[in-house]
Amino acid sequence: MSIQRIEPGPRLSEAVIFQKTVYLAGQVADEGCGSDIYKQTQQALASIDRALALSGSDKSRLLMATIYLTNMDTFADMNRAWQEWVVPGATPARATLQSARLARPEYGVEICVIAAQN
Amino acid sequence: MSIQRIEPGPRLSEAVIFQKTVYLAGQVADEGCGSDIYKQTQQALASIDRALALSGSDKSRLLMATIYLTNMDTFADMNRAWQEWVVPGATPARATLQSARLARPEYGVEICVIAAQN
Amino acid sequence: MSIQRIEPGPRLSEAVIFQKTVYLAGQVADEGCGSDIYKQTQQALASIDRALALSGSDKSRLLMATIYLTNMDTFADMNRAWQEWVVPGATPARATLQSARLARPEYGVEICVIAAQN
Repeated sequence: MSIQRIEPGPRLSEAVIFQKTVYLAGQVADEGCGSDIYKQTQQALASIDRALALSGSDKSRLLMATIYLTNMDTFADMNRAWQEWVVPGATPARATLQSARLARPEYGVEICVIAAQN
Repeated sequence: MSIQRIEPGPRLSEAVIFQKTVYLAGQVADEGCGSDIYKQTQQALASIDRALALSGSDKSRLLMATIYLTNMDTFADMNRAWQEWVVPGATPARATLQSARLARPEYGVEICVIAAQN
Repeated sequence: MSIQRIEPGPRLSEAVIFQKTVYLAGQVADEGCGSDIYKQTQQALASIDRALALSGSDKSRLLMATIYLTNMDTFADMNRAWQEWVVPGATPARATLQSARLARPEYGVEICVIAAQN
């Protein structure tokens, strides 16, 4: 059974699809976004929208989301952007964890998603 | 192919099922459980039992478990409850990580599970 | 639908396979490896190769990798071993997080992988 890879790079692919299940790379804000976690979450979610579209999926088809915050005090900020974004009635299973640092020091939130193709 | 969601809420669903694979939301102890990690783990595992039952699965069908502790010194306490709970010969792939904090400060353990439907 | 378990133990199985998707236990370096993260990553990846082979898969079939470092300053060391190991054009979706401690204090890197069977 074949594997489809979206934007494969030397370290990672942006998305990988197998048997209609879509695994996305962890998504963060764009560079220069600033430290506001509400904004960082919005940008990470926009990147997820983009990667899901390239994968033949969309946010109504989320299966699981794992959210990493560098500071759990930003939980409410992240959740505000998250709840504005998700499709009511189509929310994924979710866990929110703390990662003292992410790949770059300016990142305060990273979101990993598994979704289903349409 | 259709997605089934168990107890969908505004932020997350307790479980999401796609192609007989069940993704559970991260499970923690009940409020007021106290700080004992053996007890917290028992309660988290009871919540997993409940969510698996609602999903047409059970603990003999676990595929992968990711366990987050706020303090790695509680590893043995978590493992004691874990080993009493798992079905011999049917243990999942597993990883245990540290998360400095979980969604609420009183939580010391959170468990994320992927399972197969019966 | 049946589940296949590779080297099931009292706490975890080294790999679990369902519908041609392979979930590996988190892999770390061997005992006595020392603290060099490039070397630790090489050993963890060798363990992944071994577990994938037992599962009827290989590193060209990776779907998702989640990498945990105890110190994000070792990101480049981990990446060096990672890039030497992955198959060009067949890189998985990936996320790299920090876990202040792993199961043993000497571990500096742990890698969790989901792959597809051949």
